[in-house]
Amino acid sequence: MKLHGFFRSGAAYRVRIALNLKGLSVEHLPYRLRKGEQRDPAYLALNPQGLVPTLQDDHGATLTQSLAIIEWLDETHPEPPLIPKDPLRRAHVRAFALAVACDVHPVQNLKVLVKLREFGLSEEQVTGWAAWVNREGLAACERLIADEPGPFCFGDAPTIADICLVPQLANARRFGVDVSAFPRLLRAEAAAQAMRAFADAAPERQPDAE
Amino acid sequence: MKLHGFFRSGAAYRVRIALNLKGLSVEHLPYRLRKGEQRDPAYLALNPQGLVPTLQDDHGATLTQSLAIIEWLDETHPEPPLIPKDPLRRAHVRAFALAVACDVHPVQNLKVLVKLREFGLSEEQVTGWAAWVNREGLAACERLIADEPGPFCFGDAPTIADICLVPQLANARRFGVDVSAFPRLLRAEAAAQAMRAFADAAPERQPDAE
Repeated sequence: MKLHGFFRSGAAYRVRIALNLKGLSVEHLPYRLRKGEQRDPAYLALNPQGLVPTLQDDHGATLTQSLAIIEWLDETHPEPPLIPKDPLRRAHVRAFALAVACDVHPVQNLKVLVKLREFGLSEEQVTGWAAWVNREGLAACERLIADEPGPFCFGDAPTIADICLVPQLANARRFGVDVSAFPRLLRAEAAAQAMRAFADAAPERQPDAE
Repeated sequence: MKLHGFFRSGAAYRVRIALNLKGLSVEHLPYRLRKGEQRDPAYLALNPQGLVPTLQDDHGATLTQSLAIIEWLDETHPEPPLIPKDPLRRAHVRAFALAVACDVHPVQNLKVLVKLREFGLSEEQVTGWAAWVNREGLAACERLIADEPGPFCFGDAPTIADICLVPQLANARRFGVDVSAFPRLLRAEAAAQAMRAFADAAPERQPDAE
């Protein structure tokens, strides 16, 4: 399989973690987002949104959107499971993942920050925007799992929730958010980062890291 | 079941469509978002994100995030299916839904538009922002299903992709986007709107419509 990604993309980072947890190795094809390589016509033919990641399976089929890719990985390579079996539990795990993947990540991605600059916001305001999105979103995530014993977001094994959380906490720190306000999230992060699947997926450990 | 929602929320609209397709009737509890009713402490205890919708099942269990709710509905009430069976097909349908639910909707929701005004953008700029998000996002969605025969987004029955598309097209029109640029999306929308499940879920047909 081939993963079209970028070391710093939070969405590509999620898929790298999921692939590692499933014990799958893939060929990594990096795109320098700041140079607009994801808008190359050949890439747009694979991924009309011009976003990373895109996964190509062994038969050349194309998959986009990190959460759809991770659900597909979980359906085609069931062990270890990344989403629990019980329907209500599945819904809670997915809701946490979506709270990050819908309501935090896309509101502070490169494309949005570039647009804010075009609309005349200063560099300080743009960073302030990204910090606001991360702070509010992660505060809600902290409350979503306040009553979960852990140590992971949901239980004693990592799920798609942890896969979304870890890259987002990295982003939050990059934008100067004081993450010490989220002790439950940090506990899940620590449990995750102790696993090689998470550690090996870190942006700074990728060959294309700048 | 109880659905905490708002007539104009695109995310609540998705869940209304899914409930109608499943033939499930629920009690509707409206929250006037512009008045901040979704930030009432009693509601935040149900939905820490302070967003609609929230679904409460017959046992009082709480579900948040529209896509997680719809996946749960599809798992607990399998007929008619809202996501196909084949894993690759599932991935493509989910990717379309996520392209709307992650990369369009949250970047133009009420909370973001309010924040843009706080950062000093004019009313014209705020509308321009929302139009840009919808135009770019829907153009990518048009390409995602360009080779799909239809008439729905994926095949001859509605899926979670159509459930996300229909409310987003309504939003795009509200922000002045020329949706005639998306003929394939309009074809899927027409097929969907011919079904009572979609028509009955429309914002203007809800009791709380202003």
